[in-house]
Amino acid sequence: MNIISRAEPGLSHRLAVDLGERSYPIIIGNRLLGADRLRAHLDGRKVLVVSNDTVAPLYLQHVLADLEGLDVATCIIPDGESEKTWTRAADMLAALASLRAGRDATIVALGGGVIGDMAGFAASIWMRGIEFLQIPTTLLAMVDSSVGGKTAVNLPQGKNLVGAFHQPRAVIADLDTLRTLPEREFRAGIAEAIKYGAIVDAGLFEWYERELDAILARDPAALLEVVKTSCTIKADIVRRDEHEHGDRALLNFGHTYGHAIETLGGYTRFLHGEAVAIGMVLAAQLSANLGMADESALRRLQSLLERAGLPVNRPTDMTPAAMLDAMRLDKKVQNGKLRLILWRGIGQAEICAGVAEADILAGLDPT
Amino acid sequence: MNIISRAEPGLSHRLAVDLGERSYPIIIGNRLLGADRLRAHLDGRKVLVVSNDTVAPLYLQHVLADLEGLDVATCIIPDGESEKTWTRAADMLAALASLRAGRDATIVALGGGVIGDMAGFAASIWMRGIEFLQIPTTLLAMVDSSVGGKTAVNLPQGKNLVGAFHQPRAVIADLDTLRTLPEREFRAGIAEAIKYGAIVDAGLFEWYERELDAILARDPAALLEVVKTSCTIKADIVRRDEHEHGDRALLNFGHTYGHAIETLGGYTRFLHGEAVAIGMVLAAQLSANLGMADESALRRLQSLLERAGLPVNRPTDMTPAAMLDAMRLDKKVQNGKLRLILWRGIGQAEICAGVAEADILAGLDPT
Repeated sequence: MNIISRAEPGLSHRLAVDLGERSYPIIIGNRLLGADRLRAHLDGRKVLVVSNDTVAPLYLQHVLADLEGLDVATCIIPDGESEKTWTRAADMLAALASLRAGRDATIVALGGGVIGDMAGFAASIWMRGIEFLQIPTTLLAMVDSSVGGKTAVNLPQGKNLVGAFHQPRAVIADLDTLRTLPEREFRAGIAEAIKYGAIVDAGLFEWYERELDAILARDPAALLEVVKTSCTIKADIVRRDEHEHGDRALLNFGHTYGHAIETLGGYTRFLHGEAVAIGMVLAAQLSANLGMADESALRRLQSLLERAGLPVNRPTDMTPAAMLDAMRLDKKVQNGKLRLILWRGIGQAEICAGVAEADILAGLDPT
Repeated sequence: MNIISRAEPGLSHRLAVDLGERSYPIIIGNRLLGADRLRAHLDGRKVLVVSNDTVAPLYLQHVLADLEGLDVATCIIPDGESEKTWTRAADMLAALASLRAGRDATIVALGGGVIGDMAGFAASIWMRGIEFLQIPTTLLAMVDSSVGGKTAVNLPQGKNLVGAFHQPRAVIADLDTLRTLPEREFRAGIAEAIKYGAIVDAGLFEWYERELDAILARDPAALLEVVKTSCTIKADIVRRDEHEHGDRALLNFGHTYGHAIETLGGYTRFLHGEAVAIGMVLAAQLSANLGMADESALRRLQSLLERAGLPVNRPTDMTPAAMLDAMRLDKKVQNGKLRLILWRGIGQAEICAGVAEADILAGLDPT
């Protein structure tokens, strides 16, 4: 993949997730909100806009302007991963009932991964499935969660334990919304972007090593490249394996660990991307311990994530035993056995079944 | 269809719902529970059995005997349509979390339509979808709700507003469980069985007119025939139109009215089959008013349902205006317009869009 070429800022780019009849576009660019770009992706006249109390004050008015003349309701929930609950999903369903939304209604998800995952879940189950649009406003949602149709809510026992595969009708990523993204959220998104290089594209990983400063400075051309490249890789993997019977699981590099960290932290202590950063380093550490990969690859990954201001160490109060216990509710468990995404070095992730629990515990406690 | 031939009691019969890779058997017969028939339909070792506090004391032990040696948990909820809620579905998800159920776990639904619909919904969303078995113990569940993959919970605003299409792995209908079914429940099930004759098979309708006394006496051969015939018709319709883009909607004859009656009655006043009986008569009345069908067909339908001990009149306290308002949240609404299943006489149901609301109101108030 040639990722050196840079698009000029201000242009918008269109990718596609190719899934036959359910194919949909990913539109990436600037000044997309408030420019009447939503209507083309709506069928019926009823629309529920779902957002949170951080994003709504900034961008809801643009979205409502784009929906003028339609029968629109809003559902604004508090910000944060700890709100991605069964109860909050019920709030969205109640809003749909109040709107008297039928099967031709559409949900518009305006926000980050929490909003997109939960609005998509509500769309998947309202009247057994209605359409939804993703308008990601965080880097993490733009590079990962808004694409691919995984929807979910958390349970106290584990992250994303409840959900559905339900593809959006379109993803509209307005890069301008990243200007208001808090620094910590921005850096968390970089973790998922770096992940693509780590799992399948060593050249991309090198690009991140080279261009990280421009990205952290939110250089428009660099951001466009980050989002475009991430979506291109993800769209290709989802096209080949929509329901994760195979390679799509590679996208979960760092996630079995990361979900355990989020769960043990009560969904308030770490952002998803932060937990994934730690998780990727733990997976790389285990890979090194098992002789699958060199320590040098681990060090490059750890160093890049640290440069991005991300945490890379297991929180000391989360014991290896507690981590392993939380990991056992991972969706990749088969016949009671954990399957982990490990790697053979940068760009070479692998699905590994049958890793001994003693090795996992040892990998969690390198001292 | 030749429905005169009768199978001997004691034999079991196997039908199939032909949906390609997701095809599944419907096994109908006597002495099926406690006879080690479940294991063939399970993959993993973890099983959650969902039932209610009426059915569990009668049949749970047989099911648990069939699952001996596996890692089994139970989730027993109070009996009744008013329990088919978002909150009760959460109870099932919590039970799955406690069991540490993975993607290879199975839910076994032991009970009537409420249990089957809700357990199926939980199965559809646990880890984005696990397998489930239907073991219907009511006539209504055997002839209708256990087959076809419609899963749901109710909201206060409307029946089955939330759910998913999720086909079971198998349906195992043990006719012996009908022996303990309360008379009112039994008669409610007959409404859905008669519906098949009313919508697509005049010969079957005549058979019900002829054989109703034997059916009401729960003659084993007659019951087998009722369940077999109903499942055969439903399986054929579901095979042709799994997601209700067309003819499957015919199965909703009486249901737009019936769901409104259930909703307005707070899900406690009428059984589903009772509400559907009233709804079918109301649909037939409207069809007669519109000149689509003869009054004589309406009278035959009303008479047969009355002989089965079913209600056939709109509850006087549910005004036509209140009924119409509740009907507007029906899943068959398109572009804000109700679509109703009406008929041209016995065995000839039709999907009708664009019926004027004034006509619907007049049909609800024939005085």
